[in-house]
Amino acid sequence: MALYVQKFGGTSVGSIERIEAVADKVIRYKEQGHDLVIVLSAMSGETNRLIDLAKQIDENPLAREMDVLVSTGEQVTISLLAMALTKRGYPARSYTGAQVKLLTDSVHTKARIRSIDDAKMRADLDKGRVVVVAGFQGVDEEGNITTLGRGGSDTSAVALAAALKADECQIYTDVDGVYTTDPRVVDKARRLESITFEEMLEMASLGSKVLQIRSVEFAGKYNVPLRVMSSFEDGPGTLITLEDEKVMEQPVVSGIAFNRDEAKLTIVGVADVPGVASKILGLISGANLEVDMIIQNIAEDKTTDFTFTVHRNDFKQAKELLEASALELGAREVTGDNTIAKVSIVGVGMRSHAGVAATMFKALADESINMQMISTSEIKISVVVDEKYLELAVRALHTAFGLDAEETEK
Amino acid sequence: MALYVQKFGGTSVGSIERIEAVADKVIRYKEQGHDLVIVLSAMSGETNRLIDLAKQIDENPLAREMDVLVSTGEQVTISLLAMALTKRGYPARSYTGAQVKLLTDSVHTKARIRSIDDAKMRADLDKGRVVVVAGFQGVDEEGNITTLGRGGSDTSAVALAAALKADECQIYTDVDGVYTTDPRVVDKARRLESITFEEMLEMASLGSKVLQIRSVEFAGKYNVPLRVMSSFEDGPGTLITLEDEKVMEQPVVSGIAFNRDEAKLTIVGVADVPGVASKILGLISGANLEVDMIIQNIAEDKTTDFTFTVHRNDFKQAKELLEASALELGAREVTGDNTIAKVSIVGVGMRSHAGVAATMFKALADESINMQMISTSEIKISVVVDEKYLELAVRALHTAFGLDAEETEK
Repeated sequence: MALYVQKFGGTSVGSIERIEAVADKVIRYKEQGHDLVIVLSAMSGETNRLIDLAKQIDENPLAREMDVLVSTGEQVTISLLAMALTKRGYPARSYTGAQVKLLTDSVHTKARIRSIDDAKMRADLDKGRVVVVAGFQGVDEEGNITTLGRGGSDTSAVALAAALKADECQIYTDVDGVYTTDPRVVDKARRLESITFEEMLEMASLGSKVLQIRSVEFAGKYNVPLRVMSSFEDGPGTLITLEDEKVMEQPVVSGIAFNRDEAKLTIVGVADVPGVASKILGLISGANLEVDMIIQNIAEDKTTDFTFTVHRNDFKQAKELLEASALELGAREVTGDNTIAKVSIVGVGMRSHAGVAATMFKALADESINMQMISTSEIKISVVVDEKYLELAVRALHTAFGLDAEETEK
Repeated sequence: MALYVQKFGGTSVGSIERIEAVADKVIRYKEQGHDLVIVLSAMSGETNRLIDLAKQIDENPLAREMDVLVSTGEQVTISLLAMALTKRGYPARSYTGAQVKLLTDSVHTKARIRSIDDAKMRADLDKGRVVVVAGFQGVDEEGNITTLGRGGSDTSAVALAAALKADECQIYTDVDGVYTTDPRVVDKARRLESITFEEMLEMASLGSKVLQIRSVEFAGKYNVPLRVMSSFEDGPGTLITLEDEKVMEQPVVSGIAFNRDEAKLTIVGVADVPGVASKILGLISGANLEVDMIIQNIAEDKTTDFTFTVHRNDFKQAKELLEASALELGAREVTGDNTIAKVSIVGVGMRSHAGVAATMFKALADESINMQMISTSEIKISVVVDEKYLELAVRALHTAFGLDAEETEK
């Protein structure tokens, strides 16, 4: 008998039939004797419908009032699920964010959680009730309704699990777990039994489709075991957990992440003196553009090349900014490329294994794929390649690090 | 400069365009220097949409969860109006029932108001903000969301006006005031400048279309000047007020009310001994049927006839109940008629004027309309007539008591 916090997203509660299916799923756990706190999103489409109403009135509606408006979405689903559970003979009670005093700061539409009062939920669980909580929303010190931003329901679930010291926080999604890489790119991609919080964060490009990154950080910080599971089929999903719990069976590389959202910019031939890099990045950040990878080569002839990547949508603006200031920066030239892709190998096992980079680079070289940039962190190695080689690179690395599913599993 | 509480119903906020029209109307009052607290219903149709979702899950959904569900309707409209006002340069803040601590008992779906905390609203008004409050909803001592029942937004508005000691509570509807009688029946019906709370209550058959009776009782109890006005056109509406404020110009009869919702039942020839009436009514109330008028004639031959009216929908059930017990009650016969109508003259002026009943009965006699039952209260005389004479009776009385609009007004 355990205490589980289970979160169901908008697709899982997108219709009355789906809500009833969630009730049936919840009851299966309840029948096993578990205590359950269910966290729900709004019905899929509902949040957009509400935002559209607001936009008809004001293109930039008041953030405080947006939170009052969109928080109604989850309030609808929690009441409906509580009805469906009770109808089936399993007493349930719904709570809004305000009602469980999910206290946040006052940054409307992207508030951060400060604390949760678990008294009411505990009392309900003690009485055998299923507790149903509205995700995504909270309340500030003044009693104003706040929301946590898109996808914030995952964060609500993790925060509730932390406050209640739940045995597991289960995030139900439309995929059955976290994969070694995107199965649409590599058909031998495997579901991972488990992955560490750090790896999950580094797998952002995959993970962002499965879990909101903030909820993973939150789960790591408060040591909440997090499990990604399918709403629509049974199965163990993927457990996201602390490193030491899985160290025995630790593979070197857990997964291959990638994205096509970046573009590369190079300032050629700038003076190799202190302050140049900060001037260049100052230009970019001054325009509120975000930089991902940054590389500066060793100087030759007292000048150097400075290369970084930005989001592909920001490429044009960043290039124009640099070109306008190139002379001032003493640069010879500004070059750019928005047909690149980033491929990363991720794994806490790298820490204790030498030669991982060598294996990676050899696998790419064997396929004659040129690496344009390289960046490393403790548990990740990323390379930038021409985007036309993306799939080839991901498949080669997936095989090289032994991630391919066995034929018999197919 | 005054403090007004203004309530707009579901039709008045039924679309984005309508909400923007309400914003414009509110701003006209604000421009005159008034302080404003706006109370809103849900968009017309929305409450039914939500109830329908619940009914798909459970024909008799949990009352607590129904309140969580349907209270989202007003939460949507208050946020949208606050946006529309702010967009127009008039700062506004929305509050749910829970946020202004509109405290109620715990009788979900038909809760009664206990108190309101006006601190936040006062602070906003002091800062020049328009306050926008969700009607129809409150919160109990435990923090559970409650609702006041259909039409409860009127009651919310009156309660807020009482708590804030507002100068006037203005109820915006789709009619431009309270009429001497239904204009669809009498084309010379006039809008009343004012009417007393008691008269308004007695005019229930008209008033119920304009105002929720409970809100009128509440306004009378707390002496809140209440004004019924049109959402769609300008005009003074009808002020509902205390008797002494209008005594100088008091007409004898303020209005003619009527309804076709009743049916008549008579038990013929029951023993004229104590306890018979209570046995008969006990049968009816035991089946949860409500009785309106009750008449017992003087006994002849130690038996009497006992007549009462019930709602027309309950006629069949009530008649069957009586017939089954007729022998036991010692009755000769049970007769009934569900083609009757009740016509009432209402006016506080009756108290100080003799001969009102005589005038009424003569007016009906002049039209050869037979009165089947008569019932009087301090400020009302009601008669039951064959329903085919209803319109004729109402017109005759409207003329007899000098209520007809002058030709020049037409």
